[in-house]
Amino acid sequence: MTQGRFISLEGGEGAGKSTQIRALAAALRQRGLEVVETREPGGSEGAEAIRALLLTGGADRWSPRAEALLFAAARADHVERTIRPALDRGAWVLSDRFLDSSRAYQGMGDLSDADILALHRIGSGGFLPDRTLFLTLPEAEATARARSRDGDASDRIGGRDPAFHQAVARAFTRFAEQEPGRFLTVDAAGDSAAVTERLLLALQDLLP
Amino acid sequence: MTQGRFISLEGGEGAGKSTQIRALAAALRQRGLEVVETREPGGSEGAEAIRALLLTGGADRWSPRAEALLFAAARADHVERTIRPALDRGAWVLSDRFLDSSRAYQGMGDLSDADILALHRIGSGGFLPDRTLFLTLPEAEATARARSRDGDASDRIGGRDPAFHQAVARAFTRFAEQEPGRFLTVDAAGDSAAVTERLLLALQDLLP
Repeated sequence: MTQGRFISLEGGEGAGKSTQIRALAAALRQRGLEVVETREPGGSEGAEAIRALLLTGGADRWSPRAEALLFAAARADHVERTIRPALDRGAWVLSDRFLDSSRAYQGMGDLSDADILALHRIGSGGFLPDRTLFLTLPEAEATARARSRDGDASDRIGGRDPAFHQAVARAFTRFAEQEPGRFLTVDAAGDSAAVTERLLLALQDLLP
Repeated sequence: MTQGRFISLEGGEGAGKSTQIRALAAALRQRGLEVVETREPGGSEGAEAIRALLLTGGADRWSPRAEALLFAAARADHVERTIRPALDRGAWVLSDRFLDSSRAYQGMGDLSDADILALHRIGSGGFLPDRTLFLTLPEAEATARARSRDGDASDRIGGRDPAFHQAVARAFTRFAEQEPGRFLTVDAAGDSAAVTERLLLALQDLLP
């Protein structure tokens, strides 16, 4: 049995995470690996029910603190019911967003990064990806891509202002500096197949 | 304007919490106070939506960790949207269960009391009742009362075994020892009106 690996993809709206997860999963399956594609918030039955609470309603439906707790609850369910069982049978798990999105999005304003990490410790034992791939785009390209998407009904986040998105990008950049072994930055500009190649390269040392 | 006060009632199933909250609210209103009757999990629009997730489904729908996070999320919403606004306008708030239920029910097994308190600090700034009234009954009377109730559909908890309920009672007794100023034990046996009198006596120093 191959060793299971847990990979998360992070990045702002329009960076191409979902497209790249599909391409990456196909490439890994061609190498004979079992691959589970998943996402946050969601990825298990309970977590998808929490996702529905998180992504519907007005922007002020949840306070930042209630929102952070709901994300952590969904993540605890996702880790226990989907991610760990897949890893235990030797599968690779690719998740569209994970903990670092909570750190970047909820961990500003009145919650600290330490608070978000405490919730993750209590909820999921502090479980981390083997690797996190942060897809970066020049801001103009990200904005253009995000605008060209059909209005994503799930998007209580995409509608925020540029200063918000810049703060998120700065947070991700900080995580890459703090954890250079886990958190790698990958250029997501240009041709989609070329981006997939760069992602595979960033996983090279984990492949069997 | 009178000063708002936040009172929580705790105790096992069958201790008479909801009956006593109604009676206590009536007695306080007769003294000219505005009284808000509320409950956990729930008590605000968002928290009631989380309650529906918590109290439906099989006993293993949520892991203990996901469950503790959902309770803390509901509590954060309840505190921010219902309890604090009521206190700010000088009302008294009576809640059927609050933090100490999470400490007693979720804070055993694989979550520590420190974990539950950390979730409450992050979610609600560690906000505590002015007084918590713990209704105690001899176990035989509690069991008889609980059995005589029409099956409460909300009750994923009531169906557990006697050892579980004894552990809960021991936890509440410990809280009373740890915080004698906030957490008072009140004998809930016998005539309902006499119990209400005992509860009012335990609030005497807070009344205007």
